[in-house]
Amino acid sequence: MVKDWSEWYQEVVQKAGLAEHAPVRGCMTIKPYGWAIWELMRDQLDTAFKASGHQNAYFPLFIPLSFLAKEAQHVEGFAQECAVVTHYRIKTDPETRAVAPDPEAELEEPLVVRPTSETIIWNTFREWIQSYRDLPLLINQWANVVRWEKRPRLFLRTTEFLWQEGHTAHATAEEALEEARRMLNIYADFAENVLAIPVFKGRKTPSERFAGAVETFTIETLLVDGKALQAGTSHFLGQNFAKAFDVRFLTPENKLEYVWATSWGVSTRLIGALILSHGDEKGLILPPRVAPIQVVIIPVWKKDEERSRTTEKAHVLSQMLREKGLRVKVDDDPHHRPGWKFNEWELRGVPVRLVVGPRDLEAGTVEVAFRHTGEKRTVAEGELLTEILSWLEGIQQALYERAKTRIERQTHRVEDYATMRELLESEGGFIVAHWDGTAETEAAIKAETGATIRCIPLAWEPEPGRCIYTGRPSEGRVLFAKAY
Amino acid sequence: MVKDWSEWYQEVVQKAGLAEHAPVRGCMTIKPYGWAIWELMRDQLDTAFKASGHQNAYFPLFIPLSFLAKEAQHVEGFAQECAVVTHYRIKTDPETRAVAPDPEAELEEPLVVRPTSETIIWNTFREWIQSYRDLPLLINQWANVVRWEKRPRLFLRTTEFLWQEGHTAHATAEEALEEARRMLNIYADFAENVLAIPVFKGRKTPSERFAGAVETFTIETLLVDGKALQAGTSHFLGQNFAKAFDVRFLTPENKLEYVWATSWGVSTRLIGALILSHGDEKGLILPPRVAPIQVVIIPVWKKDEERSRTTEKAHVLSQMLREKGLRVKVDDDPHHRPGWKFNEWELRGVPVRLVVGPRDLEAGTVEVAFRHTGEKRTVAEGELLTEILSWLEGIQQALYERAKTRIERQTHRVEDYATMRELLESEGGFIVAHWDGTAETEAAIKAETGATIRCIPLAWEPEPGRCIYTGRPSEGRVLFAKAY
Repeated sequence: MVKDWSEWYQEVVQKAGLAEHAPVRGCMTIKPYGWAIWELMRDQLDTAFKASGHQNAYFPLFIPLSFLAKEAQHVEGFAQECAVVTHYRIKTDPETRAVAPDPEAELEEPLVVRPTSETIIWNTFREWIQSYRDLPLLINQWANVVRWEKRPRLFLRTTEFLWQEGHTAHATAEEALEEARRMLNIYADFAENVLAIPVFKGRKTPSERFAGAVETFTIETLLVDGKALQAGTSHFLGQNFAKAFDVRFLTPENKLEYVWATSWGVSTRLIGALILSHGDEKGLILPPRVAPIQVVIIPVWKKDEERSRTTEKAHVLSQMLREKGLRVKVDDDPHHRPGWKFNEWELRGVPVRLVVGPRDLEAGTVEVAFRHTGEKRTVAEGELLTEILSWLEGIQQALYERAKTRIERQTHRVEDYATMRELLESEGGFIVAHWDGTAETEAAIKAETGATIRCIPLAWEPEPGRCIYTGRPSEGRVLFAKAY
Repeated sequence: MVKDWSEWYQEVVQKAGLAEHAPVRGCMTIKPYGWAIWELMRDQLDTAFKASGHQNAYFPLFIPLSFLAKEAQHVEGFAQECAVVTHYRIKTDPETRAVAPDPEAELEEPLVVRPTSETIIWNTFREWIQSYRDLPLLINQWANVVRWEKRPRLFLRTTEFLWQEGHTAHATAEEALEEARRMLNIYADFAENVLAIPVFKGRKTPSERFAGAVETFTIETLLVDGKALQAGTSHFLGQNFAKAFDVRFLTPENKLEYVWATSWGVSTRLIGALILSHGDEKGLILPPRVAPIQVVIIPVWKKDEERSRTTEKAHVLSQMLREKGLRVKVDDDPHHRPGWKFNEWELRGVPVRLVVGPRDLEAGTVEVAFRHTGEKRTVAEGELLTEILSWLEGIQQALYERAKTRIERQTHRVEDYATMRELLESEGGFIVAHWDGTAETEAAIKAETGATIRCIPLAWEPEPGRCIYTGRPSEGRVLFAKAY
């Protein structure tokens, strides 16, 4: 069993070749294996966005400082973490050869590297939207963003990260709210069905809302270490940005009205969530739908003449599996022994391992090992070929179920504050408790325990009770946790 | 006929919904239709990169100033156009509400927004490469880069642009050179077969090389307005970056040697090349392989009861064509008349238009119109379905041939400088002329005519002659042109 998940995380991210810290503080380099996971996530999300009527576009990296300032809450929310471009040229000192920003090339107005793009996009939407016939406008962009990070953690919190940000404009509040909920559902489906990560769908409390939002919806999960993670958010922005950037449309009745907005995003932190949802002491465990390699085939041999035959067989099998649409790798590297390879691909979380040895050649068999259970057995080639897709499907499902059971075990319905504190101190997890609905109580609990209200789950029924902290009346329970 | 291509370009880019200038000087917003073209380019290039053994990764946006300074030529080449981040926080003045960089949050070392990533990547490669068994290392990244642009033009020259940059490391100079040429060929194939843009493959002269390269290969094309465009480059970097960042590897003989490098890139400027290779007075003409919509279907009607029948038919046809893997749009918007739609989709360059009218329903026919020739005819539905793929193939080929013929017409073999100047003044185009091989002559011609040596084509045989400018001996002809 893993004792220190924090240490485990660092080690796995590094050893599995997912990412590493870059020389610029807070930034990361995403290595090929990590990038391949991101590509699989991106492509599947992108397909879902397009299927629900969204179009991709691309807006500039730089935002004039004055734009950011137009929505008061927004600038306040991001001011502490903005990278600012002040010069557009550098200069080498002819004597010392030192390089520095050229003082003669200072920008009149500094530019912020986008921490999110509401402001630049709504400035653009003003030109794109004239009448009700231009609505809804359903735009998404895939981009890098920068939020200066004081306590960086690979994938989970980095100064630069990659994400998608959807920005939509609607004629009515109802339609915008419906869109915000639609995207929350798309995120939840993606998390559960693709990443095998169970999530709670909920609303954020006012103090946890996105800066500039009227309502923030979120999907929240709990990781193996007992910490919660916000895995994606979808915001109903009301008319805040439309008013800040004067975006109005002509209704069918020829009246000018402000547009209603949403924005929503998920990022490379999902890779962190993935790692900390399914790992074990051997390393990563990847759900098949986001595994860059779904099946690794390792030929083994003792004598030289066996080597070419098992290797050839491995490639034949690989070809047959590829024709089924699978992502397959043959590891026939002669520099490493089978045992080394077994460890390596277990560390990297490949769902299925096949081993082809000399005896398998005659028997027409192959040894199958499942990463998530460790189970091994020898099967006929025919069975492999007919069953592999359903095995992978089964693994996908099993990982989801296992994570769900774990989260249920880590979720505690608590009635008194002492127990809540104790649980948060010892094992963490979700605390399901009553709250009186005030920001003061929320802040006091956060200050005393480090836990925040992750969300008010949408599925929960109202349930009158007493606030766990103040004893005042509560309309229902909320989800507390310490979070990344 | 188009008289002013520059005006035409601006108009088409705007009206076809490809891109627009962003509020930040020099930056652009890529609109959904322009982005869809970029996605098609990206996906096809990415497939070619992966098929040739490259892996994607992602390196940080920010580069410490000191890194850029490590390769002397490199920093000199990019110093004039670097955006510099100097602060990591902004601050609102409590009295004036003015927002400004927080003077207390100045970075110890300023960061440059990457203009290209050789330095940060080679700093990373130092850790990734230890022995000959780590080579070759074949990495690509898709990213945004920033080079401050004084005379921006949408797609062709913008301060921020999107690109891919390949960075590879090899054990020998020969292998690295071979890689640089391989990628040049992949670019040339892509330009010719996907974008239908004929290119010259060639070497750059030393003064036109990438800052830090030993050899720069390029693909050069000529646009409808007689101006040349560098459409992609592939650099052999020698050991320059390996030495600057101390990247050495252990050879099989246990010796430490510096690694050999390449880098190569193409960018969103290819969209500009595409537009200015195939357009006409009606607007854009898109080759089918990069057309976001390959076939547009427009139902037409006079009476109301015809409307639903032709519209339904259009959707049935659309579904059948989609099943063949085509990108199809039905334009059944009741707010616009057919004539308006014909113009709109011609402007947007859709290769094939189908019109379904009431008489077609009975006859089982459909009217086909080809964007590139304007040809129209009525065909049986059966013929449409069996022939559509070969029609699109034919259009792809025809656009390439037409561009090739145009470029041949715009290419002049010239023996005397007066004629060269006259041609460059009047119609532009490629000038095929002798050059004495000196940077002085190259600079003098550039100063007097505005033309640069675009490349020394790889396919050209040595041909002794006399320099068109100095009359000194020349070993062969080069390609001069005024360029974007």
